[in-house]
Amino acid sequence: MTPESHRRSWVASANEHPDFPLQNLPFGVFSTADEPPRGGVAIGDLILDMLVALEADLFSQHVQRAARVAAQPHLNAFFALEMAERRALREELTELLEEASPQRDRMQALGDTLLRPIAACQMHLPARIGDYTDFYVGIHHAVNVGKLFRPDNPLLPNYKYVPIGYHGRASTIDISGAPVRRPNGQTLPPGQNEPVFGPSKRLDYELEIGVWIGQGNARGESIPIAEASQHIAGLCLLNDWSARDIQAWEYQPLGPFLSKSFATTVSPWVVMAEALEPFRCAQPARPAGDPQPLSYLLDPTDQETGALDVELEVLLLTATMREQNLPAQRIALSNTLNMYWTLAQLVTHHSVNGCSLQPGDLFGSGTLSGEQPDSYGSLLEITLGGKKPLTLASGETRTFLEDGDEVILRARCHRQGYPSIGFGECRGVVQPAR
Amino acid sequence: MTPESHRRSWVASANEHPDFPLQNLPFGVFSTADEPPRGGVAIGDLILDMLVALEADLFSQHVQRAARVAAQPHLNAFFALEMAERRALREELTELLEEASPQRDRMQALGDTLLRPIAACQMHLPARIGDYTDFYVGIHHAVNVGKLFRPDNPLLPNYKYVPIGYHGRASTIDISGAPVRRPNGQTLPPGQNEPVFGPSKRLDYELEIGVWIGQGNARGESIPIAEASQHIAGLCLLNDWSARDIQAWEYQPLGPFLSKSFATTVSPWVVMAEALEPFRCAQPARPAGDPQPLSYLLDPTDQETGALDVELEVLLLTATMREQNLPAQRIALSNTLNMYWTLAQLVTHHSVNGCSLQPGDLFGSGTLSGEQPDSYGSLLEITLGGKKPLTLASGETRTFLEDGDEVILRARCHRQGYPSIGFGECRGVVQPAR
Repeated sequence: MTPESHRRSWVASANEHPDFPLQNLPFGVFSTADEPPRGGVAIGDLILDMLVALEADLFSQHVQRAARVAAQPHLNAFFALEMAERRALREELTELLEEASPQRDRMQALGDTLLRPIAACQMHLPARIGDYTDFYVGIHHAVNVGKLFRPDNPLLPNYKYVPIGYHGRASTIDISGAPVRRPNGQTLPPGQNEPVFGPSKRLDYELEIGVWIGQGNARGESIPIAEASQHIAGLCLLNDWSARDIQAWEYQPLGPFLSKSFATTVSPWVVMAEALEPFRCAQPARPAGDPQPLSYLLDPTDQETGALDVELEVLLLTATMREQNLPAQRIALSNTLNMYWTLAQLVTHHSVNGCSLQPGDLFGSGTLSGEQPDSYGSLLEITLGGKKPLTLASGETRTFLEDGDEVILRARCHRQGYPSIGFGECRGVVQPAR
Repeated sequence: MTPESHRRSWVASANEHPDFPLQNLPFGVFSTADEPPRGGVAIGDLILDMLVALEADLFSQHVQRAARVAAQPHLNAFFALEMAERRALREELTELLEEASPQRDRMQALGDTLLRPIAACQMHLPARIGDYTDFYVGIHHAVNVGKLFRPDNPLLPNYKYVPIGYHGRASTIDISGAPVRRPNGQTLPPGQNEPVFGPSKRLDYELEIGVWIGQGNARGESIPIAEASQHIAGLCLLNDWSARDIQAWEYQPLGPFLSKSFATTVSPWVVMAEALEPFRCAQPARPAGDPQPLSYLLDPTDQETGALDVELEVLLLTATMREQNLPAQRIALSNTLNMYWTLAQLVTHHSVNGCSLQPGDLFGSGTLSGEQPDSYGSLLEITLGGKKPLTLASGETRTFLEDGDEVILRARCHRQGYPSIGFGECRGVVQPAR
């Protein structure tokens, strides 16, 4: 049998595709001009329509149930499957789409009914999101932001014990491409004692990954750390748009609220946990002197394979750059290895008080900045709170986002001897305030 | 026509009922041993089964649609109706149930198929909750809690400008009567530098009212203050169970998380905005020197009629009291007049950044303590952070809740010359940690 790394697809655009080779097969929900939303799988520049594939009877009996829930307009039931069942469907999809597939002629005869160009499809949120939780596991981000407020003592005493997180707003999570309206709100102008009301002047993005929860847990029962990774269906990119001036004024004592709840954008494709396995690695060693995690967060397998090596990128495309036909400019290159806690630790911590997680819940990682300025995941960090403007190749400068700016997040996994896989893009253009 | 205040029902238990006279008619969702969940209306000790009422053709044509959505197992679509449509259904229900109803004989012939004893029914959450937001509008609570941390400066500078709120966990909201499991979590023992893991030792309740959102707003469009009260479907009681030791350790810098997300309890009956109109009143005058609300939060009608006069009560029933057949003991008597912001101001503030509210979203008011210790809405305040135990009539003392303790919240509205109406109860018994 051809090793996983060498398998190629008869879908020509899949081979050497930067995001969606045969080894990825992310799931999403799409519609076309003629057809309502349904589940699909990205392969190269195309989407395999799961509903058409089911009707064409492409799947064997033992993956029928998985294929049916993967064809639905919301993938909650698909996320809720046992990993083994998802894995079986994935293996069968790989066989259907690889070069030597016995079904190749039959599938090609179905033409673009079965395989639709991504460019001609509209993507939708992959699941109904019950609850959205945003974490704060990017330790360099926490240090950078902490320094702006407490130069001598940037990290609070709980940071290295508690995977800090807070509840976010589920109703305003959008799919990549949705416009992002600059929010109005209360802010305290520098040097004044009374707030004013108006459009945010310090609009920012945050580079995060999103985690789609798979199987949930019963109310009152926590998820042991050794089982936690089984509860993760897959990942996406997530932009936690933030109005820094609204945030600074409102966030004490109960945390960010309207400064975040106006918009969160996710990339449409769910890169499944199974596809990410080749890119799992050991958790980076904790700096000397850092405390051990408490025992409920400690598992040898998680320590050895619970981290992820995913390269993350932020690009900015201003209105001027679009007019001058300049390409989007990379303003940060980071990596998920900047997470202080593993995804499994987040799942276990979230449920340790008996809180029930549900299939289709979404976690944000928190901003994943690296140690160096060219890896900072927000303008707040890059510009030192707006004090040091960023100069762009177009000659423009930015402290925070201006109307017309488009923020583009990308993620790719690389490993020697294995095809790279990507997450696709998470994009949003800033619109003027109402 | 009989004035509203004097109308009586042919359901005998409704007249002089402390909670559910003809003037209340709260909506809820119930099931019986034989029948799945459906909508119902409380009248005295009985529930009018909306599904049976529809099948019996009790309603006129122009309220059919409202009656149909009020019969569903989730009331989201009912909440989303225009107030005029809800009001028409309410008026027709009043006519059906009042003493002189021409339909009385027909309805009585249906017996307990139509009118079921509340005591024989199981109540359910009235709606699918999209997002849950907890506010912090009880100013005396904010002062009391602030004093524990900052004796000289208890209120933060934003409090009198910003209706402070944060996102809560929707998946763990339960109906009255559901057991409340003591959560496990990280806490920092006094005088130590490293946290320990185990059951919370400082479990507390919070006396709040809940607000069920009616019609939502389109994404990106805020709800003007003059229209905000139209977006409130009704109210309930809400207990925001809180693990103070977990909260103290985790809440910086992003707010409460696992210290709250293990359980929130609501009372099952939605007391509709229409039923509460007789109890609306002017906002209590702001203390001299307090700033005016910013203009987006200011509306003359809201100032004159946007506050509510609802008496709130907390009772405690310990395991020992149950064994000794002692009644539950009142430990606080408060009022919704302790809110610094009106419900309309909460709705407008929440949407001012373009955040979309949806029918069935739930708001918590925040703890509604009064100025005096006998009106404090949490043990944290009553016992000064655990330093001054509360002595009960049973001879027991409490700093925080013990396993077996039942917390009972009640709410009643009183007005001279008008029947009192009530919210029913919001109860929960503390179970030992797992």
